[in-house]
Amino acid sequence: MKVRRSNRLVDMTRYLLEHPRTLVSLKFFSERYGSAKSSISEDLSIIKHTFQTWGEGRLKTIPGASGGAVLTPYYSKENAQAAIEDLVKEVSDDSRFLPGGYVYLSDLIGRPDILHKVGQLIATQYVDKDVDVVMTVETKGIPIVQAAAMYMNKPFVIVRNSSHITEGPTVSVNYVSGSVKRIKKMELSRRTLSAGANVVIVDDFLKGGGTLNGMGSLIKEFDANLVGMTVLAESTNSGKRLVNDCTSLVKVDAEEDGDKKTINARPGNFMETVFGKEN
Amino acid sequence: MKVRRSNRLVDMTRYLLEHPRTLVSLKFFSERYGSAKSSISEDLSIIKHTFQTWGEGRLKTIPGASGGAVLTPYYSKENAQAAIEDLVKEVSDDSRFLPGGYVYLSDLIGRPDILHKVGQLIATQYVDKDVDVVMTVETKGIPIVQAAAMYMNKPFVIVRNSSHITEGPTVSVNYVSGSVKRIKKMELSRRTLSAGANVVIVDDFLKGGGTLNGMGSLIKEFDANLVGMTVLAESTNSGKRLVNDCTSLVKVDAEEDGDKKTINARPGNFMETVFGKEN
Repeated sequence: MKVRRSNRLVDMTRYLLEHPRTLVSLKFFSERYGSAKSSISEDLSIIKHTFQTWGEGRLKTIPGASGGAVLTPYYSKENAQAAIEDLVKEVSDDSRFLPGGYVYLSDLIGRPDILHKVGQLIATQYVDKDVDVVMTVETKGIPIVQAAAMYMNKPFVIVRNSSHITEGPTVSVNYVSGSVKRIKKMELSRRTLSAGANVVIVDDFLKGGGTLNGMGSLIKEFDANLVGMTVLAESTNSGKRLVNDCTSLVKVDAEEDGDKKTINARPGNFMETVFGKEN
Repeated sequence: MKVRRSNRLVDMTRYLLEHPRTLVSLKFFSERYGSAKSSISEDLSIIKHTFQTWGEGRLKTIPGASGGAVLTPYYSKENAQAAIEDLVKEVSDDSRFLPGGYVYLSDLIGRPDILHKVGQLIATQYVDKDVDVVMTVETKGIPIVQAAAMYMNKPFVIVRNSSHITEGPTVSVNYVSGSVKRIKKMELSRRTLSAGANVVIVDDFLKGGGTLNGMGSLIKEFDANLVGMTVLAESTNSGKRLVNDCTSLVKVDAEEDGDKKTINARPGNFMETVFGKEN
């Protein structure tokens, strides 16, 4: 079968998007389409140029016999800004007010359109970092970790709050839940994380920072390395923090003044952190 | 800006894949690329033909002034078969044995390549169904529900095992956990599911069927409709079941004979259910 360029471009785009940050060889595409490697190289230039133009990712081509292409999805500054603004708009809704300074976000972290943005934003932050695994703690961090992991094409691990019989041997740490000042326990299955692994931590919401801090301790217990921490939303009126250096996509405060309950959302520190101070 | 066909095809493919099961108008693409609607229509034919050829989805084009295109990702029978076989191969590993007839699957549900397959398989099953929301129960069902929801472009909801302060008002049901014969409680935030919604239930593992059954009760409490149930893996040596009509991608038994612990994995009933009896 010989496949025409127009069809090749469609299928290659789909294939590369399903295998981000992975070297796909010229040979693979050449055999898949019955086309010369030189034609495939031209196709890849077109794909590279298109992703660059629309600010959706970069295609790195590796020359030579064992060469190929690696698609790394990321947002241009302009697209990242627009995605953050969309998130702020979605969070800015007084009906999200919950008692105790919490904010209802469960609907957002169950929406594919939101998760695409969150995932691609986090992948953008770590675009030039060596990442082996993305970590979160159950339950609401899971959609965030999965969205990020899909764009980065890295496995993710879920830290659990208590013992589950289906996990096999675990490593556990105690941590202080910053917002309620209680000692809690979190644990991770022994076989899910290797020594020396480079780990990105993500979560849905940063308040006191206790759980992020706990995950940091767990990473140390496994002799792994912390690359960075990113949360969907951080609360800014929660007093002293147990973590520094956490990136947030959105900042949000739940304020109560008598019967008046308001949600105040604005961009987090993502743009400064990722694209520099001038933002 | 006028964009050439080759670049349009790449960007349209990316855009459509990020917005599956959504009508994208000719007008949108025409304005995005500064191209005539007739050219966009020709592009869409090429995309349609390509997805069909590779068995990765169908593109439905809607003619007329308000027309456009809807991309529905699904697997051809051949691709579905290959994906199921890959899953069986991954599960067939005696080191996955856990006490009590359980099987260690946490690594698989944290791998993007596996989740792509699981998500597209489940989307294939419900390709012609009217689905409003996909449901699961915490914790290990979440990666499955999210993978399916991303391919179907539908929101997902997570049933919780206990009260969490951040959720607002909830509806709860008691259910019998089939494998341990205990009464447990599960609950769902009141605002996450509407009456009349069409719901697909997914989970990672079917043993006794208690949790699936509980989610079925919860759907009734919300006056919503159950469209179908699908699990990644079902255990076949767990005796009497509390649910019928559940589709499984993989069947797996954890067997213990003295010191010898074996995992026996084979295809579930997915292929018969989705593609008919001749499989």
